[in-house]
Amino acid sequence: MAEVKLFGTWFSPFSRRIEIALKLKGVEYEFIEEDLSNKSPLLLKYNPVHKKIPVLLHNGKPICESFVILEYIDETWECPSIWPRDPYERATARFWAKFFDEKCVPAMWKVCWSKGEEQEKLKEECTQLLKILESVLSGNKFFGPGENIGMVDVTGNFVAYWFGILQELAGLHVFTKEKFPNVGEWIDEFHNCSIIKENLPPKDKLTAHLQARFQAVAASK
Amino acid sequence: MAEVKLFGTWFSPFSRRIEIALKLKGVEYEFIEEDLSNKSPLLLKYNPVHKKIPVLLHNGKPICESFVILEYIDETWECPSIWPRDPYERATARFWAKFFDEKCVPAMWKVCWSKGEEQEKLKEECTQLLKILESVLSGNKFFGPGENIGMVDVTGNFVAYWFGILQELAGLHVFTKEKFPNVGEWIDEFHNCSIIKENLPPKDKLTAHLQARFQAVAASK
Repeated sequence: MAEVKLFGTWFSPFSRRIEIALKLKGVEYEFIEEDLSNKSPLLLKYNPVHKKIPVLLHNGKPICESFVILEYIDETWECPSIWPRDPYERATARFWAKFFDEKCVPAMWKVCWSKGEEQEKLKEECTQLLKILESVLSGNKFFGPGENIGMVDVTGNFVAYWFGILQELAGLHVFTKEKFPNVGEWIDEFHNCSIIKENLPPKDKLTAHLQARFQAVAASK
Repeated sequence: MAEVKLFGTWFSPFSRRIEIALKLKGVEYEFIEEDLSNKSPLLLKYNPVHKKIPVLLHNGKPICESFVILEYIDETWECPSIWPRDPYERATARFWAKFFDEKCVPAMWKVCWSKGEEQEKLKEECTQLLKILESVLSGNKFFGPGENIGMVDVTGNFVAYWFGILQELAGLHVFTKEKFPNVGEWIDEFHNCSIIKENLPPKDKLTAHLQARFQAVAASK
Protein backbone atom coordinates (compact mmCIF):
# COMPACT_ATOMS: atom_id res chain seq x y z
CA MET A 1 0.00 0.00 0.00
CA ALA A 2 1.30 3.45 -0.91
CA GLU A 3 2.12 5.53 2.15
CA VAL A 4 0.61 8.64 0.55
CA LYS A 5 -2.61 8.74 -1.41
CA LEU A 6 -4.36 11.73 -2.88
CA PHE A 7 -8.08 11.71 -3.59
CA GLY A 8 -8.72 14.31 -6.29
CA THR A 9 -9.97 14.94 -9.79
CA TRP A 10 -7.88 15.67 -12.86
CA PHE A 11 -9.77 18.92 -13.56
CA SER A 12 -9.59 20.45 -10.07
CA PRO A 13 -7.16 23.34 -9.46
CA PHE A 14 -7.26 22.38 -5.77
CA SER A 15 -6.03 18.82 -6.24
CA ARG A 16 -3.54 19.91 -8.94
CA ARG A 17 -1.80 22.24 -6.49
CA ILE A 18 -1.39 19.41 -3.98
CA GLU A 19 0.22 17.31 -6.70
CA ILE A 20 2.69 20.11 -7.44
CA ALA A 21 3.57 20.41 -3.73
CA LEU A 22 4.14 16.65 -3.43
CA LYS A 23 6.32 16.66 -6.55
CA LEU A 24 8.36 19.64 -5.32
CA LYS A 25 9.00 17.68 -2.13
CA GLY A 26 9.79 14.50 -4.04
CA VAL A 27 7.06 12.56 -2.25
CA GLU A 28 5.73 9.53 -4.12
CA TYR A 29 1.97 9.18 -4.02
CA GLU A 30 -0.92 7.29 -5.50
CA PHE A 31 -3.56 9.47 -7.15
CA ILE A 32 -7.13 8.29 -6.77
CA GLU A 33 -9.49 9.88 -9.28
CA GLU A 34 -12.87 10.65 -7.73
CA ASP A 35 -16.14 10.83 -9.64
CA LEU A 36 -17.75 13.88 -8.02
CA SER A 37 -21.21 12.87 -9.24
CA ASN A 38 -20.82 9.56 -7.43
CA LYS A 39 -18.38 10.07 -4.57
CA SER A 40 -16.61 6.98 -3.28
CA PRO A 41 -17.34 5.58 0.18
CA LEU A 42 -13.67 6.20 1.01
CA LEU A 43 -13.91 9.93 0.20
CA LEU A 44 -17.03 10.24 2.37
CA LYS A 45 -15.28 8.31 5.14
CA TYR A 46 -12.16 10.47 5.05
CA ASN A 47 -13.87 13.84 4.64
CA PRO A 48 -17.26 13.37 6.31
CA VAL A 49 -17.59 17.09 7.12
CA HIS A 50 -17.14 18.67 3.69
CA LYS A 51 -17.33 15.54 1.47
CA LYS A 52 -14.93 17.26 -0.91
CA ILE A 53 -11.66 16.63 -2.67
CA PRO A 54 -8.72 16.99 -2.22
CA VAL A 55 -8.04 14.61 0.64
CA LEU A 56 -4.50 13.52 1.42
CA LEU A 57 -4.13 10.17 3.14
CA HIS A 58 -0.82 9.72 4.93
CA ASN A 59 -0.21 6.41 6.70
CA GLY A 60 -3.96 5.91 6.82
CA LYS A 61 -4.69 9.34 8.34
CA PRO A 62 -6.76 11.82 6.32
CA ILE A 63 -5.97 15.52 5.91
CA CYS A 64 -8.66 17.70 4.28
CA GLU A 65 -8.85 21.23 2.84
CA SER A 66 -6.25 22.26 0.29
CA PHE A 67 -4.46 24.89 2.41
CA VAL A 68 -4.36 22.65 5.44
CA ILE A 69 -2.87 19.95 3.22
CA LEU A 70 -0.23 22.31 1.79
CA GLU A 71 0.87 23.34 5.28
CA TYR A 72 0.92 19.69 6.38
CA ILE A 73 3.06 18.68 3.42
CA ASP A 74 5.53 21.47 4.17
CA GLU A 75 5.78 20.52 7.85
CA THR A 76 5.96 16.75 7.30
CA TRP A 77 8.53 16.56 4.50
CA GLU A 78 10.84 19.41 5.35
CA CYS A 79 13.10 19.93 2.34
CA PRO A 80 12.82 21.83 0.12
CA SER A 81 10.56 24.28 1.89
CA ILE A 82 7.57 25.20 -0.29
CA TRP A 83 6.53 28.18 1.83
CA PRO A 84 9.02 30.91 2.79
CA ARG A 85 10.99 30.19 5.98
CA ASP A 86 10.90 33.73 7.33
CA PRO A 87 7.72 34.24 9.43
CA TYR A 88 6.91 37.61 7.87
CA GLU A 89 7.41 36.40 4.31
CA ARG A 90 5.40 33.31 5.20
CA ALA A 91 2.57 35.47 6.55
CA THR A 92 2.60 37.54 3.36
CA ALA A 93 2.52 34.38 1.24
CA ARG A 94 -0.41 33.02 3.26
CA PHE A 95 -2.23 36.34 2.88
CA TRP A 96 -2.03 36.24 -0.93
CA ALA A 97 -2.81 32.55 -1.14
CA LYS A 98 -5.97 33.22 0.92
CA PHE A 99 -6.75 36.18 -1.34
CA PHE A 100 -6.66 33.91 -4.40
CA ASP A 101 -8.85 31.28 -2.81
CA GLU A 102 -11.33 33.32 -0.83
CA LYS A 103 -11.73 36.32 -3.12
CA CYS A 104 -10.60 35.52 -6.68
CA VAL A 105 -11.78 31.93 -7.10
CA PRO A 106 -15.42 32.45 -5.98
CA ALA A 107 -15.91 35.73 -7.92
CA MET A 108 -14.17 34.51 -11.10
CA TRP A 109 -16.06 31.22 -11.02
CA LYS A 110 -19.47 32.83 -10.42
CA VAL A 111 -19.07 35.56 -13.06
CA CYS A 112 -18.83 32.89 -15.75
CA TRP A 113 -22.06 31.16 -14.69
CA SER A 114 -24.22 34.20 -13.96
CA LYS A 115 -26.34 36.45 -16.16
CA GLY A 116 -27.68 40.00 -16.35
CA GLU A 117 -27.37 42.34 -13.43
CA GLU A 118 -25.71 39.76 -11.19
CA GLN A 119 -23.06 39.19 -13.85
CA GLU A 120 -22.44 42.93 -14.21
CA LYS A 121 -21.82 43.22 -10.47
CA LEU A 122 -19.48 40.24 -10.54
CA LYS A 123 -17.59 41.67 -13.53
CA GLU A 124 -16.94 44.79 -11.52
CA GLU A 125 -15.84 42.74 -8.52
CA CYS A 126 -13.45 40.67 -10.67
CA THR A 127 -12.05 43.86 -12.21
CA GLN A 128 -11.31 45.23 -8.75
CA LEU A 129 -9.61 41.98 -7.75
CA LEU A 130 -7.52 41.98 -10.93
CA LYS A 131 -6.50 45.58 -10.25
CA ILE A 132 -5.18 44.50 -6.86
CA LEU A 133 -3.22 41.62 -8.43
CA GLU A 134 -1.95 44.03 -11.10
CA SER A 135 -0.60 46.42 -8.50
CA VAL A 136 1.03 43.67 -6.41
CA LEU A 137 2.85 42.48 -9.54
CA SER A 138 4.10 45.96 -10.37
CA GLY A 139 7.89 45.50 -10.46
CA ASN A 140 7.59 41.81 -9.48
CA LYS A 141 7.55 38.80 -11.77
CA PHE A 142 5.90 36.61 -9.15
CA PHE A 143 3.85 36.98 -5.99
CA GLY A 144 7.05 36.53 -4.09
CA PRO A 145 9.03 36.63 -2.11
CA GLY A 146 12.05 36.72 -4.36
CA GLU A 147 12.53 36.28 -8.08
CA ASN A 148 11.32 32.71 -8.36
CA ILE A 149 7.97 31.10 -8.72
CA GLY A 150 6.58 29.94 -5.38
CA MET A 151 3.56 28.39 -3.71
CA VAL A 152 1.52 31.61 -3.86
CA ASP A 153 1.79 31.49 -7.65
CA VAL A 154 0.82 27.81 -7.56
CA THR A 155 -2.28 28.66 -5.51
CA GLY A 156 -3.08 31.23 -8.21
CA ASN A 157 -3.52 28.38 -10.70
CA PHE A 158 -7.24 29.00 -11.07
CA VAL A 159 -6.64 32.64 -12.06
CA ALA A 160 -3.70 31.80 -14.31
CA TYR A 161 -5.29 28.92 -16.23
CA TRP A 162 -8.87 27.85 -15.42
CA PHE A 163 -10.33 31.36 -15.53
CA GLY A 164 -8.98 32.05 -19.03
CA ILE A 165 -10.75 28.98 -20.40
CA LEU A 166 -13.94 29.67 -18.45
CA GLN A 167 -14.28 33.31 -19.49
CA GLU A 168 -13.77 32.34 -23.13
CA LEU A 169 -16.55 29.75 -22.91
CA ALA A 170 -18.78 32.33 -21.20
CA GLY A 171 -17.98 34.94 -23.87
CA LEU A 172 -16.47 37.34 -21.32
CA HIS A 173 -13.46 39.65 -21.51
CA VAL A 174 -13.01 40.45 -17.82
CA PHE A 175 -9.31 39.69 -18.00
CA THR A 176 -7.31 40.79 -21.04
CA LYS A 177 -3.56 41.32 -21.32
CA GLU A 178 -4.24 44.86 -22.50
CA LYS A 179 -6.16 45.78 -19.36
CA PHE A 180 -3.87 43.92 -16.95
CA PRO A 181 -0.38 43.66 -18.50
CA ASN A 182 1.39 42.64 -15.26
CA VAL A 183 -1.09 39.84 -14.64
CA GLY A 184 -0.69 38.85 -18.31
CA GLU A 185 3.09 38.57 -17.94
CA TRP A 186 2.70 36.62 -14.72
CA ILE A 187 0.41 34.15 -16.50
CA ASP A 188 3.04 33.74 -19.25
CA GLU A 189 5.74 33.08 -16.63
CA PHE A 190 3.41 30.64 -14.87
CA HIS A 191 3.05 28.64 -18.07
CA ASN A 192 6.81 28.74 -18.67
CA CYS A 193 7.50 26.92 -15.42
CA SER A 194 8.03 23.24 -16.21
CA ILE A 195 6.64 21.74 -12.99
CA ILE A 196 3.47 23.77 -13.44
CA LYS A 197 3.14 23.01 -17.14
CA GLU A 198 3.46 19.29 -16.47
CA ASN A 199 0.75 19.46 -13.81
CA LEU A 200 -2.02 21.30 -15.60
CA PRO A 201 -4.88 19.43 -17.24
CA PRO A 202 -4.55 19.46 -21.07
CA LYS A 203 -6.32 22.53 -22.47
CA ASP A 204 -8.46 20.61 -24.99
CA LYS A 205 -9.63 18.12 -22.40
CA LEU A 206 -10.38 20.81 -19.77
CA THR A 207 -12.20 22.98 -22.33
CA ALA A 208 -14.36 20.04 -23.41
CA HIS A 209 -15.12 19.17 -19.79
CA LEU A 210 -16.15 22.75 -18.89
CA GLN A 211 -18.08 23.17 -22.15
CA ALA A 212 -20.13 20.09 -21.29
CA ARG A 213 -20.96 21.70 -17.94
CA PHE A 214 -22.04 24.92 -19.64
CA GLN A 215 -24.28 22.89 -21.96
CA ALA A 216 -25.75 20.91 -19.08
CA VAL A 217 -26.57 24.13 -17.19
CA ALA A 218 -28.12 25.69 -20.31
CA ALA A 219 -30.22 22.55 -20.93
CA SER A 220 -31.49 22.51 -17.35
CA LYS A 221 -32.94 26.02 -17.61
CA MET B 1 7.00 53.17 20.38
CA ALA B 2 5.62 49.77 21.24
CA GLU B 3 7.14 47.02 19.12
CA VAL B 4 3.77 45.33 18.73
CA LYS B 5 0.49 47.09 18.03
CA LEU B 6 -2.90 45.58 17.41
CA PHE B 7 -5.59 47.44 15.51
CA GLY B 8 -8.91 46.00 16.57
CA THR B 9 -12.25 46.67 18.21
CA TRP B 10 -13.34 45.65 21.69
CA PHE B 11 -16.43 43.83 20.36
CA SER B 12 -14.75 41.78 17.63
CA PRO B 13 -14.21 38.04 18.22
CA PHE B 14 -11.43 38.24 15.63
CA SER B 15 -9.35 40.83 17.45
CA ARG B 16 -10.11 39.25 20.85
CA ARG B 17 -8.56 35.97 19.75
CA ILE B 18 -5.36 37.75 18.71
CA GLU B 19 -5.19 39.34 22.16
CA ILE B 20 -5.49 35.91 23.77
CA ALA B 21 -2.68 34.55 21.58
CA LEU B 22 -0.41 37.49 22.44
CA LYS B 23 -1.13 37.06 26.14
CA LEU B 24 -0.49 33.31 26.02
CA LYS B 25 2.89 34.12 24.48
CA GLY B 26 3.59 36.88 26.99
CA VAL B 27 4.00 39.48 24.24
CA GLU B 28 3.37 43.07 25.31
CA TYR B 29 1.34 45.09 22.87
CA GLU B 30 -0.49 48.34 22.43
CA PHE B 31 -4.16 47.97 21.51
CA ILE B 32 -5.51 50.56 19.10
CA GLU B 33 -9.29 50.74 19.11
CA GLU B 34 -10.68 51.35 15.62
CA ASP B 35 -13.97 53.05 14.84
CA LEU B 36 -15.28 50.85 12.03
CA SER B 37 -17.70 53.54 10.86
CA ASN B 38 -14.76 55.89 10.40
CA LYS B 39 -11.65 53.80 9.79
CA SER B 40 -8.32 55.42 10.60
CA PRO B 41 -5.85 56.31 7.84
CA LEU B 42 -3.39 53.92 9.52
CA LEU B 43 -5.78 50.96 9.26
CA LEU B 44 -6.38 51.72 5.57
CA LYS B 45 -2.65 52.06 5.03
CA TYR B 46 -1.81 48.78 6.73
CA ASN B 47 -4.66 46.72 5.28
CA PRO B 48 -5.40 48.37 1.92
CA VAL B 49 -6.79 45.17 0.41
CA HIS B 50 -9.48 44.23 2.93
CA LYS B 51 -9.61 47.44 5.03
CA LYS B 52 -10.50 45.29 8.03
CA ILE B 53 -9.39 44.65 11.58
CA PRO B 54 -7.51 42.91 13.09
CA VAL B 55 -4.13 44.12 11.88
CA LEU B 56 -0.99 43.29 13.83
CA LEU B 57 1.89 45.70 13.44
CA HIS B 58 5.26 44.22 14.37
CA ASN B 59 8.31 46.47 14.09
CA GLY B 60 6.36 48.61 11.65
CA LYS B 61 5.34 45.71 9.40
CA PRO B 62 1.64 44.87 9.08
CA ILE B 63 0.13 41.39 9.19
CA CYS B 64 -3.55 41.04 8.23
CA GLU B 65 -6.23 38.34 8.48
CA SER B 66 -6.81 36.73 11.87
CA PHE B 67 -5.57 33.22 10.98
CA VAL B 68 -2.49 34.55 9.25
CA ILE B 69 -1.79 36.61 12.37
CA LEU B 70 -2.24 33.62 14.69
CA GLU B 71 0.24 31.56 12.65
CA TYR B 72 2.66 34.51 12.57
CA ILE B 73 2.47 34.95 16.33
CA ASP B 74 3.17 31.25 16.86
CA GLU B 75 6.17 31.28 14.51
CA THR B 76 7.64 34.58 15.74
CA TRP B 77 7.44 34.06 19.51
CA GLU B 78 8.07 30.38 19.84
CA CYS B 79 7.24 29.43 23.43
CA PRO B 80 4.75 28.35 24.52
CA SER B 81 3.39 26.94 21.28
CA ILE B 82 -0.24 27.92 20.76
CA TRP B 83 -0.85 25.40 17.96
CA PRO B 84 0.02 21.71 18.38
CA ARG B 85 3.63 20.84 17.45
CA ASP B 86 2.82 17.56 15.73
CA PRO B 87 2.03 18.18 12.03
CA TYR B 88 -1.02 15.92 12.00
CA GLU B 89 -2.48 17.41 15.18
CA ARG B 90 -1.70 20.86 13.80
CA ALA B 91 -3.52 20.02 10.55
CA THR B 92 -6.52 18.81 12.52
CA ALA B 93 -6.50 22.00 14.62
CA ARG B 94 -6.32 24.15 11.47
CA PHE B 95 -9.18 22.18 9.94
CA TRP B 96 -11.51 22.89 12.88
CA ALA B 97 -10.41 26.51 13.23
CA LYS B 98 -11.28 26.98 9.53
CA PHE B 99 -14.58 25.20 10.12
CA PHE B 100 -15.47 27.70 12.83
CA ASP B 101 -14.55 30.69 10.73
CA GLU B 102 -15.69 29.68 7.28
CA LYS B 103 -18.80 27.69 8.15
CA CYS B 104 -20.07 28.53 11.65
CA VAL B 105 -19.42 32.29 11.86
CA PRO B 106 -21.12 33.29 8.56
CA ALA B 107 -24.17 31.05 9.06
CA MET B 108 -24.65 31.90 12.75
CA TRP B 109 -24.22 35.61 12.08
CA LYS B 110 -26.64 35.67 9.12
CA VAL B 111 -29.35 33.60 10.79
CA CYS B 112 -29.74 36.32 13.42
CA TRP B 113 -30.20 39.09 10.86
CA SER B 114 -32.43 37.32 8.34
CA LYS B 115 -36.17 36.76 8.16
CA GLY B 116 -38.74 34.36 6.76
CA GLU B 117 -37.73 31.63 4.38
CA GLU B 118 -34.07 32.68 4.32
CA GLN B 119 -33.94 32.44 8.11
CA GLU B 120 -35.55 28.98 8.08
CA LYS B 121 -32.86 27.75 5.67
CA LEU B 122 -30.11 29.26 7.81
CA LYS B 123 -31.59 27.71 10.96
CA GLU B 124 -31.34 24.33 9.32
CA GLU B 125 -27.75 25.05 8.22
CA CYS B 126 -26.77 26.13 11.75
CA THR B 127 -28.40 23.03 13.20
CA GLN B 128 -26.33 20.82 10.89
CA LEU B 129 -23.15 22.69 11.88
CA LEU B 130 -23.97 22.33 15.58
CA LYS B 131 -24.58 18.60 15.05
CA ILE B 132 -21.08 18.30 13.62
CA LEU B 133 -19.60 20.18 16.60
CA GLU B 134 -21.69 18.01 18.95
CA SER B 135 -20.28 14.82 17.44
CA VAL B 136 -16.66 16.07 17.51
CA LEU B 137 -17.07 16.83 21.21
CA SER B 138 -18.45 13.40 21.98
CA GLY B 139 -16.03 12.09 24.61
CA ASN B 140 -13.86 15.23 24.39
CA LYS B 141 -13.99 18.28 26.60
CA PHE B 142 -12.26 20.47 24.00
CA PHE B 143 -11.61 20.49 20.29
CA GLY B 144 -8.23 19.07 21.07
CA PRO B 145 -5.80 17.68 20.89
CA GLY B 146 -5.48 16.62 24.50
CA GLU B 147 -7.40 17.48 27.62
CA ASN B 148 -6.68 21.20 27.71
CA ILE B 149 -8.19 24.22 26.08
CA GLY B 150 -6.33 25.24 22.93
CA MET B 151 -6.35 27.66 20.02
CA VAL B 152 -9.16 25.82 18.22
CA ASP B 153 -11.40 26.51 21.18
CA VAL B 154 -10.23 30.14 21.19
CA THR B 155 -11.16 30.45 17.49
CA GLY B 156 -14.57 29.09 18.48
CA ASN B 157 -15.16 32.22 20.58
CA PHE B 158 -17.93 33.47 18.29
CA VAL B 159 -19.89 30.22 18.72
CA ALA B 160 -19.20 30.02 22.46
CA TYR B 161 -20.08 33.61 23.35
CA TRP B 162 -21.21 36.02 20.63
CA PHE B 163 -23.78 33.68 19.11
CA GLY B 164 -25.56 33.12 22.42
CA ILE B 165 -26.11 36.86 22.85
CA LEU B 166 -27.09 37.37 19.21
CA GLN B 167 -29.63 34.55 19.07
CA GLU B 168 -31.25 35.84 22.26
CA LEU B 169 -31.60 39.33 20.76
CA ALA B 170 -33.01 37.78 17.58
CA GLY B 171 -35.46 35.66 19.57
CA LEU B 172 -34.03 32.41 18.23
CA HIS B 173 -33.38 29.05 19.89
CA VAL B 174 -31.06 27.49 17.33
CA PHE B 175 -28.61 26.46 20.02
CA THR B 176 -29.89 25.15 23.34
CA LYS B 177 -28.08 23.02 25.90
CA GLU B 178 -30.89 20.48 25.67
CA LYS B 179 -30.41 19.98 21.93
CA PHE B 180 -26.60 20.09 22.02
CA PRO B 181 -25.40 19.00 25.45
CA ASN B 182 -21.75 18.44 24.44
CA VAL B 183 -21.54 21.92 22.89
CA GLY B 184 -23.22 23.28 26.01
CA GLU B 185 -20.60 21.68 28.27
CA TRP B 186 -17.83 22.97 26.01
CA ILE B 187 -19.24 26.50 26.30
CA ASP B 188 -19.26 26.16 30.10
CA GLU B 189 -15.62 25.00 30.06
CA PHE B 190 -14.75 27.86 27.70
CA HIS B 191 -16.13 30.36 30.20
CA ASN B 192 -14.31 28.65 33.07
CA CYS B 193 -10.94 29.31 31.48
CA SER B 194 -9.44 32.39 33.10
CA ILE B 195 -7.49 33.73 30.10
CA ILE B 196 -10.62 33.52 27.98
CA LYS B 197 -12.89 35.03 30.64
CA GLU B 198 -10.54 37.98 31.03
CA ASN B 199 -10.51 38.59 27.29
CA LEU B 200 -14.19 38.59 26.45
CA PRO B 201 -16.13 41.84 26.14
CA PRO B 202 -18.43 42.37 29.16
CA LYS B 203 -21.82 40.79 28.48
CA ASP B 204 -23.88 43.91 29.27
CA LYS B 205 -21.76 46.13 27.07
CA LEU B 206 -21.72 43.66 24.15
CA THR B 207 -25.47 43.08 24.45
CA ALA B 208 -26.14 46.84 24.38
CA HIS B 209 -23.82 47.25 21.38
CA LEU B 210 -25.51 44.47 19.40
CA GLN B 211 -28.99 45.61 20.44
CA ALA B 212 -28.24 49.06 19.04
CA ARG B 213 -27.28 47.41 15.74
CA PHE B 214 -30.54 45.44 15.69
CA GLN B 215 -32.48 48.66 16.30
CA ALA B 216 -30.57 50.52 13.59
CA VAL B 217 -31.29 47.74 11.07
CA ALA B 218 -34.99 47.69 12.04
CA ALA B 219 -35.21 51.49 11.73
CA SER B 220 -33.61 51.48 8.28
CA LYS B 221 -36.26 49.09 6.85
